Amino acid sequence: MTVSSDLSSFSAYPIIQAPMAGGGSNPRLAAAVSAAGGLGFLAAGHKTSEAMYEEIRQVRDAVSRPFGVNLFMPQRTACDPSAVAVYAEQLHGEAAWYGVGLGDPDAGGDGGDDGYAAKVGVLLEDPVPVVSFTFGCPEPAVLEAFAQVGTFTVVTVTTVAEAVAAQTAGVAAVWVQGVEAGGHQGSHRDDPRLDGAGVGLLTLVTLVREAVDLPLVAAGGLMRGAQIAAVLAAGADAAALGTAFLVCPESGAHPLHKRALTDPVFVRTELTRAFTGRPARGLLNRFVREHGPYAPSGYPRIHHLTQPVRRAAAEAGDAQGMALWAGQGHRLARELSAGALVETLAAELHEAQEARA
Amino acid sequence: MTVSSDLSSFSAYPIIQAPMAGGGSNPRLAAAVSAAGGLGFLAAGHKTSEAMYEEIRQVRDAVSRPFGVNLFMPQRTACDPSAVAVYAEQLHGEAAWYGVGLGDPDAGGDGGDDGYAAKVGVLLEDPVPVVSFTFGCPEPAVLEAFAQVGTFTVVTVTTVAEAVAAQTAGVAAVWVQGVEAGGHQGSHRDDPRLDGAGVGLLTLVTLVREAVDLPLVAAGGLMRGAQIAAVLAAGADAAALGTAFLVCPESGAHPLHKRALTDPVFVRTELTRAFTGRPARGLLNRFVREHGPYAPSGYPRIHHLTQPVRRAAAEAGDAQGMALWAGQGHRLARELSAGALVETLAAELHEAQEARA
Repeated sequence: MTVSSDLSSFSAYPIIQAPMAGGGSNPRLAAAVSAAGGLGFLAAGHKTSEAMYEEIRQVRDAVSRPFGVNLFMPQRTACDPSAVAVYAEQLHGEAAWYGVGLGDPDAGGDGGDDGYAAKVGVLLEDPVPVVSFTFGCPEPAVLEAFAQVGTFTVVTVTTVAEAVAAQTAGVAAVWVQGVEAGGHQGSHRDDPRLDGAGVGLLTLVTLVREAVDLPLVAAGGLMRGAQIAAVLAAGADAAALGTAFLVCPESGAHPLHKRALTDPVFVRTELTRAFTGRPARGLLNRFVREHGPYAPSGYPRIHHLTQPVRRAAAEAGDAQGMALWAGQGHRLARELSAGALVETLAAELHEAQEARA
Repeated sequence: MTVSSDLSSFSAYPIIQAPMAGGGSNPRLAAAVSAAGGLGFLAAGHKTSEAMYEEIRQVRDAVSRPFGVNLFMPQRTACDPSAVAVYAEQLHGEAAWYGVGLGDPDAGGDGGDDGYAAKVGVLLEDPVPVVSFTFGCPEPAVLEAFAQVGTFTVVTVTTVAEAVAAQTAGVAAVWVQGVEAGGHQGSHRDDPRLDGAGVGLLTLVTLVREAVDLPLVAAGGLMRGAQIAAVLAAGADAAALGTAFLVCPESGAHPLHKRALTDPVFVRTELTRAFTGRPARGLLNRFVREHGPYAPSGYPRIHHLTQPVRRAAAEAGDAQGMALWAGQGHRLARELSAGALVETLAAELHEAQEARA
């Protein structure tokens, strides 16, 4: 099969719904975005291959347009079990407060593999148009196998070095994630010495544009069509928005999470390891303020450890104990249907491009 | 006198040379930028009113085009003397290594006033076209006095709240500084609890654009004309570049500093209090790596304390002990004359705007 070398063949507009493994992404949202002329994405991270396949089936039933599936790369870095045990002790009061036990850090099994091989197997057997990867870059043979079955591959990068590595491995496009982005930073390795090294989107797009010869998706803090015009002017080929789609009625995010994004009680976001053991950007709430300063590097074990607490907080209606993933532009979220949001963004993009013409 | 309400009256292109108090700015650079159709800036921070006036005189002699002068706002926050004393002890080895004594933290006199009142007096007596303020916002009466003498005022902002405060005080425009920017973050208050709260430029421009009804200058990481097109598309009225002009032959930066910006031995930048006691972005070198983690909040006392060490490092040809201010886009610096850089940026801006038209 021939793989398109051009992102623009997948959607009418250069507008992508970023995968949100924290609960935002689901088949309804992805289908609505793709139906409206954007590119919808499923988030297979934290899901079994069977659950992923069921979601793919639902999108295919709902829409005949292209869509994407995002995978988390297996985490090869060893996680210090004593650091996880210390953090569990520090979270003891949280668990007691919400009346639950902490989760089993090894629930994910197999050292944080996240069912990667099984999901790759499913996606190679019954291909989808686009597959993206977060937290690293697949082996060249895997990327080649996807190309053979006609799947367009994308790797998330947060530095120029990661972009060059992804190009060398043979990926079809890079997803340039600025420090503004909500949820996990897709760095290929979690290195606490690099906390604070995140690069702003407009700078990173330009640095990557001059370093690799691949289509670029720009992501991080984008909420308006004028910002999409901006990243296209800087050399990106498409823009991806997560937080903007998180508030849509089709999104699977918890209602408290959706409401929090524009609630003035939350004054800013912060990158924190408090919930998952890897830096992820969310609204600064009580949990982040209290536990962020000492949360260890330890994805995905910390994710499994804190999951029951986060769920119990949500059930108790307490946004101060939930992971409220949000990009830096969260205050600009608009509660529109996903289709209406795609159309609004496309109209704003057109207007911004006309204004400067 | 009537003050222009429009930034575009000051230069042919929406391209501003950001003031660089660390040594980059000087009359030659400002005059060259203004002569080429940009807006040049003098940096009066750390200078006496007499030295500032002499520089203004030199720009006026060299060029008849408008230019700007930047002032630092007095620092009203008390600085903990014991924290400064502890840091002085920690820097003892640096001073010994370079064979100098540490500076007198109180050299600036008057609690960090920086000669503000005297400089304001000079600028009201013999007005210049544009005056900008960093580290805070002047009293409404001062802004009104500048308006009365026909000077266009600009205040640096790093958050939406600071932008709204500046508009309320009566400033003519806001200078939106993203976290990517080299040198000092112009936050109105240095609060260590807000370390890590810096917002990416493209997000901040959009947030401020929707919050205030004033002309916006966008600054932070900008190195190419396509990025200028990007911030204009996002709603800015002009773009300011510091690091891009720092390498020009007209810039007063130390040759080692200029060379370091594109030297691959420096892999990234970091926001650090190590040199001045306030977060400023520079290339990550030995001094930042060693002293950044415990450097206290204490501008301008820490600036005076470390000055002899930085000077001695420069004289010894040791870039690892110097303050190498740099924005996140530093690798894209081009060693062109200031006039040629303005023309190149303007041509790239035009090209980027045409490409999307």
